[in-house]
Amino acid sequence: RPAVGSAATLEPMPAQVSIIMGSDSDWRVMEAARAVLDELGVSSEVDVVSAHRTPQKMVDFARGAADRGVRVIIAGAGGAAHLPGMVASMTRLPVIGVPVPLEKLDGLDSLLSIVQMPAGIPVATVSIGGARNAGILAARMLGAFDAELGARLDAFAAELERQVGDKAQALRDRVEAGA
Amino acid sequence: RPAVGSAATLEPMPAQVSIIMGSDSDWRVMEAARAVLDELGVSSEVDVVSAHRTPQKMVDFARGAADRGVRVIIAGAGGAAHLPGMVASMTRLPVIGVPVPLEKLDGLDSLLSIVQMPAGIPVATVSIGGARNAGILAARMLGAFDAELGARLDAFAAELERQVGDKAQALRDRVEAGA
Amino acid sequence: RPAVGSAATLEPMPAQVSIIMGSDSDWRVMEAARAVLDELGVSSEVDVVSAHRTPQKMVDFARGAADRGVRVIIAGAGGAAHLPGMVASMTRLPVIGVPVPLEKLDGLDSLLSIVQMPAGIPVATVSIGGARNAGILAARMLGAFDAELGARLDAFAAELERQVGDKAQALRDRVEAGA
Amino acid sequence: RPAVGSAATLEPMPAQVSIIMGSDSDWRVMEAARAVLDELGVSSEVDVVSAHRTPQKMVDFARGAADRGVRVIIAGAGGAAHLPGMVASMTRLPVIGVPVPLEKLDGLDSLLSIVQMPAGIPVATVSIGGARNAGILAARMLGAFDAELGARLDAFAAELERQVGDKAQALRDRVEAGA
Amino acid sequence: RPAVGSAATLEPMPAQVSIIMGSDSDWRVMEAARAVLDELGVSSEVDVVSAHRTPQKMVDFARGAADRGVRVIIAGAGGAAHLPGMVASMTRLPVIGVPVPLEKLDGLDSLLSIVQMPAGIPVATVSIGGARNAGILAARMLGAFDAELGARLDAFAAELERQVGDKAQALRDRVEAGA
Amino acid sequence: RPAVGSAATLEPMPAQVSIIMGSDSDWRVMEAARAVLDELGVSSEVDVVSAHRTPQKMVDFARGAADRGVRVIIAGAGGAAHLPGMVASMTRLPVIGVPVPLEKLDGLDSLLSIVQMPAGIPVATVSIGGARNAGILAARMLGAFDAELGARLDAFAAELERQVGDKAQALRDRVEAGA
Amino acid sequence: RPAVGSAATLEPMPAQVSIIMGSDSDWRVMEAARAVLDELGVSSEVDVVSAHRTPQKMVDFARGAADRGVRVIIAGAGGAAHLPGMVASMTRLPVIGVPVPLEKLDGLDSLLSIVQMPAGIPVATVSIGGARNAGILAARMLGAFDAELGARLDAFAAELERQVGDKAQALRDRVEAGA
Amino acid sequence: RPAVGSAATLEPMPAQVSIIMGSDSDWRVMEAARAVLDELGVSSEVDVVSAHRTPQKMVDFARGAADRGVRVIIAGAGGAAHLPGMVASMTRLPVIGVPVPLEKLDGLDSLLSIVQMPAGIPVATVSIGGARNAGILAARMLGAFDAELGARLDAFAAELERQVGDKAQALRDRVEAGA
Repeated sequence: RPAVGSAATLEPMPAQVSIIMGSDSDWRVMEAARAVLDELGVSSEVDVVSAHRTPQKMVDFARGAADRGVRVIIAGAGGAAHLPGMVASMTRLPVIGVPVPLEKLDGLDSLLSIVQMPAGIPVATVSIGGARNAGILAARMLGAFDAELGARLDAFAAELERQVGDKAQALRDRVEAGA
Repeated sequence: RPAVGSAATLEPMPAQVSIIMGSDSDWRVMEAARAVLDELGVSSEVDVVSAHRTPQKMVDFARGAADRGVRVIIAGAGGAAHLPGMVASMTRLPVIGVPVPLEKLDGLDSLLSIVQMPAGIPVATVSIGGARNAGILAARMLGAFDAELGARLDAFAAELERQVGDKAQALRDRVEAGA
Repeated sequence: RPAVGSAATLEPMPAQVSIIMGSDSDWRVMEAARAVLDELGVSSEVDVVSAHRTPQKMVDFARGAADRGVRVIIAGAGGAAHLPGMVASMTRLPVIGVPVPLEKLDGLDSLLSIVQMPAGIPVATVSIGGARNAGILAARMLGAFDAELGARLDAFAAELERQVGDKAQALRDRVEAGA
Repeated sequence: RPAVGSAATLEPMPAQVSIIMGSDSDWRVMEAARAVLDELGVSSEVDVVSAHRTPQKMVDFARGAADRGVRVIIAGAGGAAHLPGMVASMTRLPVIGVPVPLEKLDGLDSLLSIVQMPAGIPVATVSIGGARNAGILAARMLGAFDAELGARLDAFAAELERQVGDKAQALRDRVEAGA
Repeated sequence: RPAVGSAATLEPMPAQVSIIMGSDSDWRVMEAARAVLDELGVSSEVDVVSAHRTPQKMVDFARGAADRGVRVIIAGAGGAAHLPGMVASMTRLPVIGVPVPLEKLDGLDSLLSIVQMPAGIPVATVSIGGARNAGILAARMLGAFDAELGARLDAFAAELERQVGDKAQALRDRVEAGA
Repeated sequence: RPAVGSAATLEPMPAQVSIIMGSDSDWRVMEAARAVLDELGVSSEVDVVSAHRTPQKMVDFARGAADRGVRVIIAGAGGAAHLPGMVASMTRLPVIGVPVPLEKLDGLDSLLSIVQMPAGIPVATVSIGGARNAGILAARMLGAFDAELGARLDAFAAELERQVGDKAQALRDRVEAGA
Repeated sequence: RPAVGSAATLEPMPAQVSIIMGSDSDWRVMEAARAVLDELGVSSEVDVVSAHRTPQKMVDFARGAADRGVRVIIAGAGGAAHLPGMVASMTRLPVIGVPVPLEKLDGLDSLLSIVQMPAGIPVATVSIGGARNAGILAARMLGAFDAELGARLDAFAAELERQVGDKAQALRDRVEAGA
Repeated sequence: RPAVGSAATLEPMPAQVSIIMGSDSDWRVMEAARAVLDELGVSSEVDVVSAHRTPQKMVDFARGAADRGVRVIIAGAGGAAHLPGMVASMTRLPVIGVPVPLEKLDGLDSLLSIVQMPAGIPVATVSIGGARNAGILAARMLGAFDAELGARLDAFAAELERQVGDKAQALRDRVEAGA
């Protein structure tokens, strides 16, 4: 499994994907990104970087990411979620934004705060709470330049299809038997 | 009338209120803030500071504002509007956020991106496109410590009341005459 | 700690910030405003003032606040939340509005009822349920004229940053160890 | 036709319905209320009463309406629309609220600010911009105690039905001829 | 206490207010309307009338209500809530609509389905789940023609004000003591 | 081309699809339903039937439709759009609802009023303003029992595909030439 | 009771209605469609077909449905719910879409993703979670060509009416006794 | 400048980015993606591929893209926008979705239909109408593996910053001169 390191220390790292979030309470959502990257054999690092509470750390992180060898950044945040967009404004790397739903508004505020970026600074936004998809999206970006990873992604999709097939059969059996 | 200066030059200035916006196209909305501050005799400065396109200027502006003698910051932005919140994270001054409506969504994205700040970093949000109210709110903050300005605010409110009285009379006359 | 007094008695008080709410059931949300003001050493008073059920008390409160020495008013209300705006119409003090979420609509009605004020009468609106931020915002307004409070606000921000740093380290350790 | 008078002068008046609005610019919407009351032979008065800009006038109006002989109040307002609810809190008369749509949000803010009143103080809310329906609703309230007006309302409904019948025939003819 | 009778039997009844709802499951919300009418000494009847499942009963109910002596109808319904509007189209009585919230959408669908009536057929809409206010609104309509009921409504408002006063004192005591 | 007849006259008719709408002003939207049914060779009738202004006509129409030989009903309405659901409650035929957008709210109120029907009474809802799709959907229902119409629907889909192919070629040419 | 079969095997089947869903977790919602079709004596088949995870199975299913003798397709899906629309694009049969609500947004995303189809490809959308209504709607489509089923639908509606009558009586009794 | 080719012909092409859209009317929005890719020196191809009207072409396109050498797909669509998600389900390449706003709902339906993808199949969603950002995002993905493009992206950001600087100066001059 890939090593875990602190983005904040700014040391060069082997991680290809950097997963950051605005608060450690976002980990309950964001851990799915790391989990799927592990499944797909993609190295990642994890850190808490708050746009509002640690602005300097955010600036340092964003400016240094490309030079440290990171290729994709995944950033999760909730409410007035500024982290993904602010990081995107200070790096040339692709930034994937995960709208973390808070207690109220079902994540609609998080979604709009992340996706509605002005021309010039894009954020690749995934679904509300969609950290697992953020990880897969990062892998797809890398897989476009990595034949082995591409093959793993194809196998991943085939496995998804197989699982749905099994579940479909199980449901049909259940309906046949009991309904 | 108060002098106009560039916040970007970071020179000490006499302006009590700093009015910034994410794009010069926001001026059509934001000029109402400066206009009402002029009416109320409060000095202001104006600048374009983009959270996403000029992040370093934003950092420098936010960190230097209090030391330059600014007492209130008004920040307008649209869409994924990060400027007010990001500035608020790097100053101890009160920051007033003006949600600028863009072509789509009627400013609802701007509003949520500005108002839904996490605990610790508040933004004093006014109505969608409410730059005039942002100016008055800044004056109220200053007026709580400035008896003369307080008196001007009282006169301002009395004048509002008088104007409504005149318009009410005009409408009653019109209805009486023509309806 | 600052004394607690009743705004309704209209006696002169030393409180700099007045915290009012439309119903005593709003206290579960609003107490965070008083708590953070206590942390920051800012005196406050607390009262229930209902725009709809005690309109005369509201009028008396709003008209008398500035003369009693209050410098900032924090008003929380839910649903068709008229208290912040109505108080703002009868004082020249800055009024901070806290949208209290009710059982339905997640506070969106409260937010729009508070923030969408007409030109002339601003309310400084914070996030849905954001009473803690309302307290900090009041302190920022006062801190712009009070160097000691300003320094406490700087320390407060530094402490926030330190806490996020600790949490980030804890998360990285946890991920390193167990994930 | 019924006389027009100023509610603000607080003189006793023969009007059964009082039509007020927060701004004279709301008249473009609100005049439909007076028009339909004229059609139905119900006396009305018209005035501009702003909750935020003329709070004292609003208090005087609301407290005096029942004693002046008014039986129903129609109040139109937009944005953070507090007029209907505030008036309802200071009278025992039924208050009909008309959400006036502003430039942004299509009147959704006006609607929620008017309809979501707390328990104890109802506002009879009609559709966004629905001033004509507000007038008809007032007439229905009066007609429940006035047999002649009741008959006029029955005739009014029959006329509506007849008009739809004519339009239906015209459309069928047009489709038959041209389609 | 006022007698309870079935609207469906179409017998003349002494009830001044008729409370109907689209489903017996709406009673959990609608019983508050009857309770407050009882408090205010206003007679009411209760029935289940479904626009969609018992359309003929609805037609008979709406057409017969005025002749049976009913003066105000309160109708609660949820989702695509057609009952209030359909009843309003077949009576000249004022109809108060209560948007009943269903499991999804927090009653927003119910609210829009009830309040957005076309010109000609008004429904007096109260807040989502606001059955208590519907009852008070009905009493206000009747009280405009009934001095005794008007006095009870004044006492009701005074009692509300007194209760808020007590709660305010209790909160101030609690804050003084423990906070 | 199929004959046009009035549903209101209740005479037996050869039309397989009945197109009704709440107001003749809805024809601008609804004529697309008739047009595509003409294209597909399906007979239709057209009428204005208002749930609120002509409730009796609506009852007669809904109850008589199946016996007159109609097999599918298309009903368009806007705002608090009750026509499709009310008709569905008084016929066993499938009813297709078209949400007609009004001046405000972009048809969201129309959509929710039509689609959110309670269990027992379905309405087949199409997109906001989607009258053309309502016509095609009616044809699909009929085509499931009519091989010739089924073949016309297949040809219709093939033609759609061909048109997109042509447009794609034109765009590619344009981009090649001019971009 | 009708046989259960797998749509995926593409064998000719006697089922008139095919019920598919994007995930086996949707069965908790979708089983109501099968249940009501059983009640109405309409044969149905059940399968899991995911637009996104089993795209080839979806294509095969959609293209083969009409030839296998299916007359109506019911498709349920949640979130970015593409299954109903995609199936509709590859069959000439009527497709009924059921918006399945997910954990966030109360099914509003599912609803808009299903109902807002472009011109040419309609989906007959029912309410959020409205699988029971989807089943009834399918039966209505079939009943327009099947007199026996039509009669069962009439009986079904009569039974609904009777049940509401019983519940109304029970509520009136309860109110009479206890309220 | 990069060659333009037809994705539909399935010939191997040198284009790194494939820009597709559901309708040629989307080109008014989508051409900004190609324009910025041209500015950044990234080759692209353009085609119309409709999920609903040309489903087979969509399947062929999605399945063949990676083998043809495409590295990123940009897909724009409006309303029930299924194209980006469906293509993402049949390729392992990263797919960027552009919500195209239609006449109603301001693109909110397009946004939710694209962004709310189920776990397993991500779409990198940009802002409503944000085709220019889609192009930049594609370039960022490629730039993570292409030092020269990375440098061009850095220059692009610097140019954005410079432009804002110029506009800020122009605004300050204008305010100084005329305000």
